[in-house]
Amino acid sequence: MKIAVLGTGMVGQAIAGRLAELGHEVVVGTRDVAATMARTEPDAMGNPPYAEWAAAHPDATLATFADAARDAELVVNATSGGVSIAALTTAGAGNLAGKVLLDISNPLDFSRGFPPTLFVKDTDSLGEQIQAAFPDLKVVKALNTLTASLMIRPRDLTDGRHTVFVAGNDTGAKKTVTALLESFGHTDIIDLGDITGARGTEMFLPLWLRLMGSLNTPFFNVRVVR
Amino acid sequence: MKIAVLGTGMVGQAIAGRLAELGHEVVVGTRDVAATMARTEPDAMGNPPYAEWAAAHPDATLATFADAARDAELVVNATSGGVSIAALTTAGAGNLAGKVLLDISNPLDFSRGFPPTLFVKDTDSLGEQIQAAFPDLKVVKALNTLTASLMIRPRDLTDGRHTVFVAGNDTGAKKTVTALLESFGHTDIIDLGDITGARGTEMFLPLWLRLMGSLNTPFFNVRVVR
Repeated sequence: MKIAVLGTGMVGQAIAGRLAELGHEVVVGTRDVAATMARTEPDAMGNPPYAEWAAAHPDATLATFADAARDAELVVNATSGGVSIAALTTAGAGNLAGKVLLDISNPLDFSRGFPPTLFVKDTDSLGEQIQAAFPDLKVVKALNTLTASLMIRPRDLTDGRHTVFVAGNDTGAKKTVTALLESFGHTDIIDLGDITGARGTEMFLPLWLRLMGSLNTPFFNVRVVR
Repeated sequence: MKIAVLGTGMVGQAIAGRLAELGHEVVVGTRDVAATMARTEPDAMGNPPYAEWAAAHPDATLATFADAARDAELVVNATSGGVSIAALTTAGAGNLAGKVLLDISNPLDFSRGFPPTLFVKDTDSLGEQIQAAFPDLKVVKALNTLTASLMIRPRDLTDGRHTVFVAGNDTGAKKTVTALLESFGHTDIIDLGDITGARGTEMFLPLWLRLMGSLNTPFFNVRVVR
C-alpha cells in the first residue's frame, strides 16, 4: 500500500521503518524537508536526528506533508498532538479526503513540564477534533497507548500477549487499520466503537506515564484480561 | 482488624462481606441508619437493598459514618465519589485522624447521563482532594480500577493474573493496604508512588467504562505486562 507517515519523531520513524520492511511504499511527511534533513542534534527525547535514521532507511522517502498525503492510500498521524491539526491542515483537506487516517497522537501539553496534562479530555478528544476538522477523513484512533517499539513489534514482549484498541466511525477503515496492526504482530485488538472511544485511550495516558515512572521503563503494555 | 466500610452500595457490600469473611470486625457506615435499613427498592444499578444484604451478613453491623469511623483502625471509602468528602466530613476529622483510608471512590459525574464525566482530573484527583481535606488521614487510593466482585475475589478471573495499583503518601499505610489486597487474593500490586498517582487510576475510568460496553461485561481487568 502507498502510505504517508506524517511526523519524523520516534513514532514516525518506528512506523515508517516497519511499514517499509513489510513491503509498503512509504513516504514520510514533514513541515519543511530541508530543515528536517539539516537537523544534526538529537531531539528533546534523545532520539537521533531524522537524517541519521533516513540514511539507514533508504526505502522511506521524505516529502512535505502535502506531497506525502497526496499520493497515499492511507495516512498515519505520528505528529505531536499539539501540532496534529496544523500538520493535517498543511497536508490539505483535499489530499486527505476519503482516506483512512491511523491517528496515533495524544493531546499532551508539556507547557507546565512533566508530567504533561491533556489539552482535550473527558467530553471530547483529539481523535474527535481531527475527525470534526476533516469530515471526509476516516479517522481511526489506535496505537496511542504503548511505546513506539511495541507498536511495531508487539511480539517482543511476552510473545504479543497484550492489547491494543481501535476506535473510529468507519467500519471499513477500522478493518484496514486492524489488518495493518495484525501485520505488525498484534493479536488482541479491541474495537471500542466510534471515534468517541478515543477519549478512553487518550485519558489512559496519565496512568501510562505514571507506570513508566514506577516501572522505570516504557517497555510495557496492558493486557485486557477477560 | 477493626474496619469501617463507608458506603452501603455494591462496592461497600462487597468489601464489607469479604472483610468479615476474612475475620475482620466490620462496621458499615451510612448517613442515616434508619433510612438505609428502611429502603426496600433495588438501587439505580439494580442491586438489592442494603437490608436484604445485611440479613445475609449478620457479621457486619451498620452504624452512622461517625460511629463506624470512631472505633475503626482502618477506614474504607466505598461511597460515590460525588459525596465522598461530605461522607468523610460527617464521619468526622477527629474520628479519622491518624488512620489509614483505603479510598476506592471515583470522581464520576452522572449529571449529564452515561457515560459519566470526571468532576476532577488531570492536575488533581479525588484521592488528592480527600488527602488535602483530611491531612491527618493516610489516604491510599486502590481498587478503583475494577469491578466490585474482582476487587474482592481476583482469582475468579484467570487465577488472579491481573493488576491493581496503590498510590499514597504514607509508606506504612500502603503496606497495610497492600497486605489487605493480598489477603483478597491479589498478587500483582503496583505502587504508583504518592497520592498524585490517583490521577492516573481515576482517569483510567473512561477507558474502563468504554471497555465494559465493548466487552458487554464488567468482569475484566487489565494486566500490566512487562
